[in-house]
Amino acid sequence: MDAAAVRALLARVQAGATTVDDAARELQHMPFTDLGYARVDHHRALRQGFPEVVLGEAKTAQQIAGILGEIAAKGCNALATRVSPDKAAEVVELLPAARAVPAARAVLVEQVAWADRGRGVIVVVCAGTSDLPVVEEAVLTAQLMGNRVETITDVGVAGVHRLLAVRERLAAAEVVVVVAGMEGALASAVAGLVSRPVIAVPTSVGYGASFGGLAALLAMMSSCAAGVTVVNIDNGFGAAYAAALINRREGE
Amino acid sequence: MDAAAVRALLARVQAGATTVDDAARELQHMPFTDLGYARVDHHRALRQGFPEVVLGEAKTAQQIAGILGEIAAKGCNALATRVSPDKAAEVVELLPAARAVPAARAVLVEQVAWADRGRGVIVVVCAGTSDLPVVEEAVLTAQLMGNRVETITDVGVAGVHRLLAVRERLAAAEVVVVVAGMEGALASAVAGLVSRPVIAVPTSVGYGASFGGLAALLAMMSSCAAGVTVVNIDNGFGAAYAAALINRREGE
Amino acid sequence: MDAAAVRALLARVQAGATTVDDAARELQHMPFTDLGYARVDHHRALRQGFPEVVLGEAKTAQQIAGILGEIAAKGCNALATRVSPDKAAEVVELLPAARAVPAARAVLVEQVAWADRGRGVIVVVCAGTSDLPVVEEAVLTAQLMGNRVETITDVGVAGVHRLLAVRERLAAAEVVVVVAGMEGALASAVAGLVSRPVIAVPTSVGYGASFGGLAALLAMMSSCAAGVTVVNIDNGFGAAYAAALINRREGE
Amino acid sequence: MDAAAVRALLARVQAGATTVDDAARELQHMPFTDLGYARVDHHRALRQGFPEVVLGEAKTAQQIAGILGEIAAKGCNALATRVSPDKAAEVVELLPAARAVPAARAVLVEQVAWADRGRGVIVVVCAGTSDLPVVEEAVLTAQLMGNRVETITDVGVAGVHRLLAVRERLAAAEVVVVVAGMEGALASAVAGLVSRPVIAVPTSVGYGASFGGLAALLAMMSSCAAGVTVVNIDNGFGAAYAAALINRREGE
Amino acid sequence: MDAAAVRALLARVQAGATTVDDAARELQHMPFTDLGYARVDHHRALRQGFPEVVLGEAKTAQQIAGILGEIAAKGCNALATRVSPDKAAEVVELLPAARAVPAARAVLVEQVAWADRGRGVIVVVCAGTSDLPVVEEAVLTAQLMGNRVETITDVGVAGVHRLLAVRERLAAAEVVVVVAGMEGALASAVAGLVSRPVIAVPTSVGYGASFGGLAALLAMMSSCAAGVTVVNIDNGFGAAYAAALINRREGE
Amino acid sequence: MDAAAVRALLARVQAGATTVDDAARELQHMPFTDLGYARVDHHRALRQGFPEVVLGEAKTAQQIAGILGEIAAKGCNALATRVSPDKAAEVVELLPAARAVPAARAVLVEQVAWADRGRGVIVVVCAGTSDLPVVEEAVLTAQLMGNRVETITDVGVAGVHRLLAVRERLAAAEVVVVVAGMEGALASAVAGLVSRPVIAVPTSVGYGASFGGLAALLAMMSSCAAGVTVVNIDNGFGAAYAAALINRREGE
Amino acid sequence: MDAAAVRALLARVQAGATTVDDAARELQHMPFTDLGYARVDHHRALRQGFPEVVLGEAKTAQQIAGILGEIAAKGCNALATRVSPDKAAEVVELLPAARAVPAARAVLVEQVAWADRGRGVIVVVCAGTSDLPVVEEAVLTAQLMGNRVETITDVGVAGVHRLLAVRERLAAAEVVVVVAGMEGALASAVAGLVSRPVIAVPTSVGYGASFGGLAALLAMMSSCAAGVTVVNIDNGFGAAYAAALINRREGE
Amino acid sequence: MDAAAVRALLARVQAGATTVDDAARELQHMPFTDLGYARVDHHRALRQGFPEVVLGEAKTAQQIAGILGEIAAKGCNALATRVSPDKAAEVVELLPAARAVPAARAVLVEQVAWADRGRGVIVVVCAGTSDLPVVEEAVLTAQLMGNRVETITDVGVAGVHRLLAVRERLAAAEVVVVVAGMEGALASAVAGLVSRPVIAVPTSVGYGASFGGLAALLAMMSSCAAGVTVVNIDNGFGAAYAAALINRREGE
Repeated sequence: MDAAAVRALLARVQAGATTVDDAARELQHMPFTDLGYARVDHHRALRQGFPEVVLGEAKTAQQIAGILGEIAAKGCNALATRVSPDKAAEVVELLPAARAVPAARAVLVEQVAWADRGRGVIVVVCAGTSDLPVVEEAVLTAQLMGNRVETITDVGVAGVHRLLAVRERLAAAEVVVVVAGMEGALASAVAGLVSRPVIAVPTSVGYGASFGGLAALLAMMSSCAAGVTVVNIDNGFGAAYAAALINRREGE
Repeated sequence: MDAAAVRALLARVQAGATTVDDAARELQHMPFTDLGYARVDHHRALRQGFPEVVLGEAKTAQQIAGILGEIAAKGCNALATRVSPDKAAEVVELLPAARAVPAARAVLVEQVAWADRGRGVIVVVCAGTSDLPVVEEAVLTAQLMGNRVETITDVGVAGVHRLLAVRERLAAAEVVVVVAGMEGALASAVAGLVSRPVIAVPTSVGYGASFGGLAALLAMMSSCAAGVTVVNIDNGFGAAYAAALINRREGE
Repeated sequence: MDAAAVRALLARVQAGATTVDDAARELQHMPFTDLGYARVDHHRALRQGFPEVVLGEAKTAQQIAGILGEIAAKGCNALATRVSPDKAAEVVELLPAARAVPAARAVLVEQVAWADRGRGVIVVVCAGTSDLPVVEEAVLTAQLMGNRVETITDVGVAGVHRLLAVRERLAAAEVVVVVAGMEGALASAVAGLVSRPVIAVPTSVGYGASFGGLAALLAMMSSCAAGVTVVNIDNGFGAAYAAALINRREGE
Repeated sequence: MDAAAVRALLARVQAGATTVDDAARELQHMPFTDLGYARVDHHRALRQGFPEVVLGEAKTAQQIAGILGEIAAKGCNALATRVSPDKAAEVVELLPAARAVPAARAVLVEQVAWADRGRGVIVVVCAGTSDLPVVEEAVLTAQLMGNRVETITDVGVAGVHRLLAVRERLAAAEVVVVVAGMEGALASAVAGLVSRPVIAVPTSVGYGASFGGLAALLAMMSSCAAGVTVVNIDNGFGAAYAAALINRREGE
Repeated sequence: MDAAAVRALLARVQAGATTVDDAARELQHMPFTDLGYARVDHHRALRQGFPEVVLGEAKTAQQIAGILGEIAAKGCNALATRVSPDKAAEVVELLPAARAVPAARAVLVEQVAWADRGRGVIVVVCAGTSDLPVVEEAVLTAQLMGNRVETITDVGVAGVHRLLAVRERLAAAEVVVVVAGMEGALASAVAGLVSRPVIAVPTSVGYGASFGGLAALLAMMSSCAAGVTVVNIDNGFGAAYAAALINRREGE
Repeated sequence: MDAAAVRALLARVQAGATTVDDAARELQHMPFTDLGYARVDHHRALRQGFPEVVLGEAKTAQQIAGILGEIAAKGCNALATRVSPDKAAEVVELLPAARAVPAARAVLVEQVAWADRGRGVIVVVCAGTSDLPVVEEAVLTAQLMGNRVETITDVGVAGVHRLLAVRERLAAAEVVVVVAGMEGALASAVAGLVSRPVIAVPTSVGYGASFGGLAALLAMMSSCAAGVTVVNIDNGFGAAYAAALINRREGE
Repeated sequence: MDAAAVRALLARVQAGATTVDDAARELQHMPFTDLGYARVDHHRALRQGFPEVVLGEAKTAQQIAGILGEIAAKGCNALATRVSPDKAAEVVELLPAARAVPAARAVLVEQVAWADRGRGVIVVVCAGTSDLPVVEEAVLTAQLMGNRVETITDVGVAGVHRLLAVRERLAAAEVVVVVAGMEGALASAVAGLVSRPVIAVPTSVGYGASFGGLAALLAMMSSCAAGVTVVNIDNGFGAAYAAALINRREGE
Repeated sequence: MDAAAVRALLARVQAGATTVDDAARELQHMPFTDLGYARVDHHRALRQGFPEVVLGEAKTAQQIAGILGEIAAKGCNALATRVSPDKAAEVVELLPAARAVPAARAVLVEQVAWADRGRGVIVVVCAGTSDLPVVEEAVLTAQLMGNRVETITDVGVAGVHRLLAVRERLAAAEVVVVVAGMEGALASAVAGLVSRPVIAVPTSVGYGASFGGLAALLAMMSSCAAGVTVVNIDNGFGAAYAAALINRREGE
């Protein structure tokens, strides 16, 4: 173990077996990770009870199953996103501990019991049926990270009264995730109704001038409503991850 | 007169002075406009009581004054849009019959008395102070074309209740022109509240990801609300012109 | 019923069973939709005799059949657009009341008798064979919404005489829908020939610098002809919907 | 006052001067804002102790001074962003209660005493001198909203050790705002070091392929580090606003 | 026949059976094409010995076969471009007079004997194997239009000596068509070697920053060499058509 | 003279003063231009009676005057394009032989008598006043290169009859240069009327979705009319240069 | 042989069989490549021990096998990149001397023994599994060109400590190739750790705002770290080729 | 001094005044820069005899003078790039040790004697007068970094013979920097002539479809010539910096 190596060095200094100068030089060249520093990577937070997440899109089923298996071996939950149905089936065949969640285009190894680690509720809101895969990805992620999640799927900026009808539920959220394609206007409208952070997820739903979600992305970026931040197109995982960080109870 | 020329030719045929074959050949090469067909150009509708409109941006004050003067000489109203304050002053100096309307970045020669030629009211709605020059251009154009115009300037999609507060006024419109920059979401929200045509004008108000109005343009194009059509960025004139065509009373 | 709830509250005030202050507070928190206000959504106009429309592209056959079925259950006409032939067949199998209209990439439940609700005729004009699916989508939509529709498909800006040959038919329209891909120039040319509103639909027909319809969209947006408004690429439905709103007879 | 109007109506019902039916009808048509409902607009949260914010860019000095004056008259703090030095000077001349903050390109009316309303500290981090105006806008906004703010300005992804040197300060933050132009890589690097939300602000610093901040925006959107959300280019205000919502202490 | 109709009318005038006024009115409303005017469309030049050309991409095999058949019925050559191998096979099955030219992605009905109608030779030059389908489309088109065509396929701007080795052949051309993907630099290099018009065809060959031919298109547009004009990406037909117009011998 | 050097070398070989091997080696390393080969550069064609052309935009007045002076010293005509009025005045002051042509944004040294070197007439056509500087640049260039040029400036695609009114003049051209901003549709319409090559020049006239001429450029690229080739935005010079090459009489 | 032809000519001059004038004229028209000049093409360097490289993407298996076979016939190594697995199998069947390297999407004919021709080591570094095909293409190319190559695949900018852990290996490189998709930040971070040239390869890994590698490309272009140069998206070959040129030992 | 701090700690361990465990813990939390590790930042290489470089564009004269002054105080050379003439004058006034180099848009403090630290010569080549500021920036940077630099400014891809005329000089370079705007084709042509690394700098010279250098950037990225790497638009500094790293003699 590396921390042991440091201690051994220090012990040699203590014992006079190594001079101070030599020890100083040695310390300079010792890789940081060998010093027992937390190996900082983007999975750190996840390992603290959050699932490690694998972006499945450009990986083979073998690679996905391999990585999920490794994570699972550490006793963690593990999640792979953007996995097509066919690939998901292959992964599950290779790694029976995994299960596919087609609605969220995800594959999941779940072995840690759910516990509420949040201050409040994360509300995920979208306008229509076509945005649901992104919504499901967000919901799955947020739940795995220990959050209570509510979903509202029947509102749209072109039906303002329907939006107002769910205003109380939106206002009760600790964080709101707004998933919207096409013109992405829902983010501004929702942000005007709540006084909590709104995370906007543009989706690739739409055609023509939507340009694969670009219209929604630019619109959300240009939102006239303060309090809105934006993640990548179709990135339900990323929105939920940020929402979970915001919602996390002190000490969790 | 050209129709006269046709008649003369026919008379020569009638009189046997020209053979049928020669007359047929001659007719083939006669320019269409010489046949007395209405000379169709984009100013036609305008000449029927609408102002002729000059896009002032890339023209010199001399050119603008010259064209406005020509139109005025025919007894029509004449309008130049996108004229900077300095250029407008120059134009007025060169053409005293003209007056500048700085709020609309326009110069105007008005000599035909206003008459209501519309079925109802055109409502021009926007969210904020910065959109006002485009609003004023639309209002001026619509009024010159014989329409009653109402303006609503204190609404925005991030303040849904304020929008609902003007719902009756919106619903009473024959056509609604929605002027909005940034994310341009107001068009969808308004279209959800009315059952009449909505013409959306993206504006260049905004910065960064607004990309000079592109965000609003794409968003309006991608609107989830049916009934929305879109004109060019900052094109208050074009929106008002289309609105006036829609609102025009039968027989006008 | 919610309006009943309001009345009940007022009755309690009248009867002295509730104080004015309590009633005022209760009114504040009552959801707006519960007050009996028309539940404003983007389908409202449609329900008044227009078909409800489902964007089929990103939905499964199950979802499309489900939504169409629900609408049909209310006795309305129902339309799904952008449905691929395979998906359309599946929908029809799931929902025998529906029929596919392959030429328009649509699926339809039609149970309300057609009635002419318009002031005049909507003319849908395009240049070529490849634009026909968009034309058919527009025609189907406009007809379902109670309009007389004429189609002109053999004109193009590169053949000016053919355009002039249909000039009378164009001029007789109450609204013209221009469907054009490639350089999208037809919109400007048509707008110069008529004095009624022109709604331009850029199509994705073309290749290379067409960039999926972007060239036509930008060109139509930049049209030198006044009176042109634009909808999204390939959005035949949206153009027809707006045209129907414009054409609607007073009182319909 | 409007709530008074509701009470008056209810009193008339109570007194039998108005029937229940008439009162119900009247309530239906009463504008929502007149019912004493919180007038939901994007300034709501701000009025609860936060400054109202005016986007100064496309407004005249007269307009800015006017709006700031109105807000100030209500006893609130008021902030205008994106105000050029010259315009700021004009505003201050028109509204002596205001003061210019040139480093943040802002004008400010401050009349409410600062109080710590946050759970922790907001850290605003950037790489270089050229990003400072955006940093200052963020700092000013966050402070006005009742937050403790720390600024770190000497780090960049090309100097990883300098970033690690401030790791403890970053890790101690409740929220981190990362301001970066050019390639915008700092957001990913910082997000890898902390387990709290990171709000990324792309700036327009750079040239050529930076395309006015587009490179940084797309890069931040595509960040491989989870927990990053993004606001508009140069939008220091928006990032700080969202950060303040996240940091807000329960009950504030 | 329409010219006959005109003659009949004139004969009636001549015979006194129709008054001059009636005839004048009738002529005004007679569609132009009915007057025997050349029906001006984009196929006009082609019919004068050139093949009519059908853009096959967005058409079905049935449609292509139908249109080709109609043209063939008039005794002309007929060409369809951008036809995939499968579709081409279908077309040939439907229209046995047609033959597929897979190298050019074309289908052809050829029934007019080739004759040299040009002043000189059209040289089509490209750098590599991948550009060949576009080259072949250009060659086929130019030949059908009565031109002698030479092809040079082994040069590229990165091998300047190879380019110089064919300099004499290039210099002997009446028109040069340069087909190039990737950076499209060949157009500038060739234009520097010849004193005749150069028509550049960007191709979609390349990947990444080629963006489907955009890089080559912009580069060719920005060419530092005078005398270069550009057609659409992969538009071998268009380049050959323009080259044929340039090369056409007086009187053809 | 370099050809002399080659001859001298060969003479030494002939005289036995140099061995064949040495001569072969020497020839290999002799710069090509020293062999008396025509020094091929983009000015070659121009020197054959055409003006050398300087792109003035990014050059100082000193640089422009210097280069023009050098060319003039060789007895040629010389032209600088894209020179702002102020810079032009400076150039003329530095080089009295030059004269400014403000309408074409050009500076000119003209010392070779004009001679008709073309087969026919080049017609330059545009729609409006704002395109005139580009038209003038094209006209000036074409005339300097020995062409008869006609200009038609009062047509636009939105006024089809006006276009038809000049049809004979267009049809009489050997080459047509179409200059158009906004939607750039004129190129397609003109190409449909003539059977000679059409060179399209998109201009930066327009605003919003014109994106500095991009809309017109893409539209012209995507033209449905065969025979159209395109040059860079505002590149009147380039269009005229290509037109002159096409129009050049055999032997000139 | 061409040099022989020159010598023969010179011998004829020497022998008096050809006059100096005739020889001079003949030399002028002799193709440069016939003079025995190195036929300069983009394969020159490769032939000096480097593999000739074929871009396989837009070529058929027949074409690839044909070109590889020709190169192989000269005794060189030959490499085809961007070959799909299916196509690779076909190529190998057609050309048994070839072998597929699926991990690098390449097909290879290797017949020249490897020799170290470099000064040092080329390190190819990437962050994740999805970038591996590009890494493998780079590694294969560099090795074929006679370089020692090391690969580091477990680092990313979001895990700064892991990057520091490989710092010594990076610092020991003569050139570093950084392969990164998504936000492409790794290039800047690595360039800050080494004092040798860094060649950045953006990859198309990512989704949404990655726009097929555009985000990474723009970010790498805008890198705040000096010493970074960039190649095309996914162009592992090009990066390795440039790296090999940099690493090449004097005299190789 | 920090290294001293480490030594002090080790001495305390040696002396038994600190336990091994305590020392290990302390070392873990000691900032890396305090350990005497080279403070790795993007200026490191520069400090080793290279100038530190300040991007002047978005900085005030005060800021530039301040930073240059600080660097100068350490005895290094210091360079600020992208400084406008006016700002440069201000900087020199504030920091008399600096001198402006207007041709390179730079300000410079030079106090270290030049020494040749390179293996060979860096050749900077461009086509025209307008690219000169970028060339000069590259030359200045490369010279300050201890390189011999040659400049070739009279070549362009449209004049292939002129390029061949300088072939020997290009071939003699250790690295070639190609500076080119417009279509940027020079990079490919030069790379075909040399067997050393080519660094391409797209410039913003051009107009219209050049889109501020985007055309050249994409073209260079898509170069068909191997061995080309690219830096940001107008980034003469960056190209020279990378060239200097490549050219650096072993041990420098």
